[in-house]
Amino acid sequence: MIIVMKSNSTEENIKNIVQNLENCGLKAHISKGEAITIIGVVGNKNIFLERNPQLMPGVEKIVHVSESYKLANKKFHPDPSVIDLGSVKIGGDSFVIMAGPCAVESREQMIETAEAVLSGGAQILRGGAYKPRTSPYSFQGLEVEGLKYMAEARNKTGLKVISEVTSKEAIEAVAGYVDIIQIGARNMQNFELLKAAGKTNIPVLLKRGMCATIDEWLNAAEYIMSEGNENVILCERGIRTYETSTRNTLDLSAVPVIKSKSHLPVIVDPSHATGVRDYVAPLAKAAVAAGADGLMIEVHPNPAIALSDGPQSLNPEDFRKLCKEIKPFIELMGRKF
Amino acid sequence: MIIVMKSNSTEENIKNIVQNLENCGLKAHISKGEAITIIGVVGNKNIFLERNPQLMPGVEKIVHVSESYKLANKKFHPDPSVIDLGSVKIGGDSFVIMAGPCAVESREQMIETAEAVLSGGAQILRGGAYKPRTSPYSFQGLEVEGLKYMAEARNKTGLKVISEVTSKEAIEAVAGYVDIIQIGARNMQNFELLKAAGKTNIPVLLKRGMCATIDEWLNAAEYIMSEGNENVILCERGIRTYETSTRNTLDLSAVPVIKSKSHLPVIVDPSHATGVRDYVAPLAKAAVAAGADGLMIEVHPNPAIALSDGPQSLNPEDFRKLCKEIKPFIELMGRKF
Amino acid sequence: MIIVMKSNSTEENIKNIVQNLENCGLKAHISKGEAITIIGVVGNKNIFLERNPQLMPGVEKIVHVSESYKLANKKFHPDPSVIDLGSVKIGGDSFVIMAGPCAVESREQMIETAEAVLSGGAQILRGGAYKPRTSPYSFQGLEVEGLKYMAEARNKTGLKVISEVTSKEAIEAVAGYVDIIQIGARNMQNFELLKAAGKTNIPVLLKRGMCATIDEWLNAAEYIMSEGNENVILCERGIRTYETSTRNTLDLSAVPVIKSKSHLPVIVDPSHATGVRDYVAPLAKAAVAAGADGLMIEVHPNPAIALSDGPQSLNPEDFRKLCKEIKPFIELMGRKF
Amino acid sequence: MIIVMKSNSTEENIKNIVQNLENCGLKAHISKGEAITIIGVVGNKNIFLERNPQLMPGVEKIVHVSESYKLANKKFHPDPSVIDLGSVKIGGDSFVIMAGPCAVESREQMIETAEAVLSGGAQILRGGAYKPRTSPYSFQGLEVEGLKYMAEARNKTGLKVISEVTSKEAIEAVAGYVDIIQIGARNMQNFELLKAAGKTNIPVLLKRGMCATIDEWLNAAEYIMSEGNENVILCERGIRTYETSTRNTLDLSAVPVIKSKSHLPVIVDPSHATGVRDYVAPLAKAAVAAGADGLMIEVHPNPAIALSDGPQSLNPEDFRKLCKEIKPFIELMGRKF
Repeated sequence: MIIVMKSNSTEENIKNIVQNLENCGLKAHISKGEAITIIGVVGNKNIFLERNPQLMPGVEKIVHVSESYKLANKKFHPDPSVIDLGSVKIGGDSFVIMAGPCAVESREQMIETAEAVLSGGAQILRGGAYKPRTSPYSFQGLEVEGLKYMAEARNKTGLKVISEVTSKEAIEAVAGYVDIIQIGARNMQNFELLKAAGKTNIPVLLKRGMCATIDEWLNAAEYIMSEGNENVILCERGIRTYETSTRNTLDLSAVPVIKSKSHLPVIVDPSHATGVRDYVAPLAKAAVAAGADGLMIEVHPNPAIALSDGPQSLNPEDFRKLCKEIKPFIELMGRKF
Repeated sequence: MIIVMKSNSTEENIKNIVQNLENCGLKAHISKGEAITIIGVVGNKNIFLERNPQLMPGVEKIVHVSESYKLANKKFHPDPSVIDLGSVKIGGDSFVIMAGPCAVESREQMIETAEAVLSGGAQILRGGAYKPRTSPYSFQGLEVEGLKYMAEARNKTGLKVISEVTSKEAIEAVAGYVDIIQIGARNMQNFELLKAAGKTNIPVLLKRGMCATIDEWLNAAEYIMSEGNENVILCERGIRTYETSTRNTLDLSAVPVIKSKSHLPVIVDPSHATGVRDYVAPLAKAAVAAGADGLMIEVHPNPAIALSDGPQSLNPEDFRKLCKEIKPFIELMGRKF
Repeated sequence: MIIVMKSNSTEENIKNIVQNLENCGLKAHISKGEAITIIGVVGNKNIFLERNPQLMPGVEKIVHVSESYKLANKKFHPDPSVIDLGSVKIGGDSFVIMAGPCAVESREQMIETAEAVLSGGAQILRGGAYKPRTSPYSFQGLEVEGLKYMAEARNKTGLKVISEVTSKEAIEAVAGYVDIIQIGARNMQNFELLKAAGKTNIPVLLKRGMCATIDEWLNAAEYIMSEGNENVILCERGIRTYETSTRNTLDLSAVPVIKSKSHLPVIVDPSHATGVRDYVAPLAKAAVAAGADGLMIEVHPNPAIALSDGPQSLNPEDFRKLCKEIKPFIELMGRKF
Repeated sequence: MIIVMKSNSTEENIKNIVQNLENCGLKAHISKGEAITIIGVVGNKNIFLERNPQLMPGVEKIVHVSESYKLANKKFHPDPSVIDLGSVKIGGDSFVIMAGPCAVESREQMIETAEAVLSGGAQILRGGAYKPRTSPYSFQGLEVEGLKYMAEARNKTGLKVISEVTSKEAIEAVAGYVDIIQIGARNMQNFELLKAAGKTNIPVLLKRGMCATIDEWLNAAEYIMSEGNENVILCERGIRTYETSTRNTLDLSAVPVIKSKSHLPVIVDPSHATGVRDYVAPLAKAAVAAGADGLMIEVHPNPAIALSDGPQSLNPEDFRKLCKEIKPFIELMGRKF
């Protein structure tokens, strides 16, 4: 951390800051220039920062040189993490596809979809049993009943299963049924939920918040990891911008940015990002080429009657075609699929 | 709702949609133009919408004519709501100031701040006992201990008290201590929390999400209201944009927009919006002039040592000066303060 | 400027940078910490910056401590600038209203509007003769013919006149007819146009770009001023965000931010910002209260037949009502109107 | 176009609108529902729209069904356009790489870079002779001298040449030296410049504005095309968002969106979009996979001393490596390179 002093700051101001730093167990490295004085600080700055140095007399600005996340930070864990689900691995040289409907609607729908996504090559079945919806009057999910259908589909197909949670209670409910718990964009900074997920040993897929910076996203991952659960998978699903021709703006730059800052695997969800079926395939290929560790694709046996988020769902045939098309891209990237 | 058909849609396509509408108990009003056919729909469209009409063959687009929120909607409740806290009212021709520190830090701090904000003219004391923080390593709040200090300050001064909740457990914990529960920006779409708050009869201040549209914000209010608690106060606290000279971009247009769409009172928080002390007073005055029902202002007896969010805190003297300055603006607006 | 070195930077790296700085006539102030080394730099850094120090071996980041604009900077010109139009002043303790139609449509329209806005209290008549429009098939303005109508309205009423320019040729064309030339949001970084405006001695109203930061806006003003024309007036007209209930998001924080960084007067245009007639009056009051030096308001004798931008236009009666309503706010701010 | 009437609109209101439509030579198709009445309109609506139907009594909203651009619209030109530069084609099944420095700095730099990018496989040399820069005190380009260096490099290597223009004068100046003129992001809505470019017969590369929607971008292309020059190439270069880990947010969704709406070729500039050298290669591959018709890559013989925009420049060796890496992706897409 660097404290830049104002050009009109006094000796008194500097002494005051040095005193504060020392009280917090930190050492100050002062550098006086002609016009500006700079104080460099090394060590654990959390206590000091809570005194709000920005407000101390004479301070122009505070510059942070290192990130606030540690367990998620590549600096302290240079090798990529691989999340181990037994027969399926996420990260490293594996490539994974999670596919299924946005919402679990019926037993038949889940069995049918599971078989379809398996035949395309997906390793993981997705499906929402607890649905966070903008309006309280929209369909909110089948809850435990939906989980049971997913578990049955898992048994029948050998696919792994992922489902979203929206509360601590839901985490307990899904625990027996799923291989990965998903925390959605709206809950990315629901810190109580992150901490509860961190207390389990179930892998967590953490979607990026609708307007979260990559730094906030990695800090959210840190909440989970700091509770003991280091099995975190990140999922880019588009950010909110002024552009209206897609539902969100898929930020594929996030893939190389994450790869340079963190060891966690990152997968991409082009279905939710664009909200338009025709854009899913080109952006799925682009995600592979950008270095993503996997994809999340919405598939519904009959998109036109899906209970939520239909316009971007692929039908089973489209999904198989997509998998076939992206396979050579995955191989070019040196990944197994 | 209006369904616009593609120019190349067929009779078959139109018949299919009419059939679907009728299955959902709706009537279709068809209008055939030279190039486009339009189907108008009246009635409760929720079930039909779950069939994803956007995806039905021949459909160009769906146009919604009415909002999805009802209880929060001005159309069905033309008079402004007044939230009644006994000696203090929020909304109507009252003007209210909520002031205090971002985080409760100590008993002394709360008592001292309470007396300071009372002397300035505030009617409500704010203070955070449960703090949602970006990094898990930042100060997370004093929890119940903090609530007790707030309650003591309330007893001493007669001020009403507001504090943030971040979980269902926290709602139970604060229930005995506060007059208003606050749901913060990060939890605006934590629907489980909204529903839990809706099951109490304590007034709820709902902050706008960092990148929430006004429509999503009113739908979040609807979640609380649809559970039975109609005492909702909205709070504009800035939205996330590309501009970096303020922490967020205070969206004062939200005040007249809310006034035209909803009967709920709306207050403005210029402290968190800007993150810069010098900008608080001009934007507080602007909020009054835009028609806000109140202000939330961060006040700390000693901003330079505040444990969180110091740079925008006013000290007691600045706060009293601000209140004095805005009083004539409040009076010009025909409000009591 | 501060150069922060990477924790693994070498002595060689530091020497290389010092050498580069000295070649550019700058002095380096080195401060070595345990983990990081910082190099402080004072002096004119333009030549050095063109060598891209961010890329020099061992560099972590470059921190700028001072702004790149000088003539627009309050540091070097602490007193507020007053733009003198003879009988009308902009800035200081004056308050100014510019009103009129978005586009000049006819002689009658301009005369009628001029009389209407004069009777409301406006000092300046606005009207577009050269219209930058998103589609090439929209009405593009009456050009010189429109300017003549404006000049005639000026002669009849004594109002000052402002009109937009979109090319160097237009600057020459308007020179004889207007008191202020306006550079619109789309041209805020049309640097050739800025320089051409800077070569005249006509006051320039510079609208903020649709997604310009305040820093870029002040640098755009600097382009005009650095050519010799220091009579620049800034105009906040809303920025582009994801929110759709208003056309743009009016950033009223820009008013106190500009006041703290620059001596230039700043006026606010709530008509273009919101695009909704009903929101103009509350936000006009808010702009006054935030400390703006004036307002730009769209007025049309018959908004329902205006050739462009009708939905936010006030009719003459509404405008007179607005002026009456905001007058006490202007007086509260200690301004003359 | 569809006009949706308010639920409380009167017969009088509807008659008024029909009258207005007929005066503008349009036919109204009225559809009365229980609660809402809808008026469908077919024909050239420009004159009618200038009367601002949004403001006519009884109108709830106006819904546009078709786009305002025509020449750029895929509907009226279903086959992809191929821009023919003689030995080089842009669009169709060709893939093109434009590479070179941001700014032309010297004869040696251009010759050296031209040979380097040719050896990597680029077909087009880029270089800025007229530089639009945020601050008037930054390097503004070598102008005609720079163009001469580019032309010499072209003669030596057979590469085609592209350079940016910022004024009508610059268009005249570059005409003899370049094969493509570039209009930059800041000038995307400098309509006078677009029209001037449209009056030449030189192909134009139109960069997307920093916060332009895809619709505005296509309308800007329409400005060029409607003057007679249909040789327009679009270039996605990142949009402005709140995210700060990259300079802009590269919107790769724009590639499939453009492909679905327009026949114009679209290329992607990952260098300017990210501003970070390490992110260029992964996003270049992603752009290929998303379906782009080409890439614009910043290459400098010595990035550390580049006069502008160094941090994202590749050196010749990195560039050759990138070309080698992306070649199989280009082939997978069925493109010639």
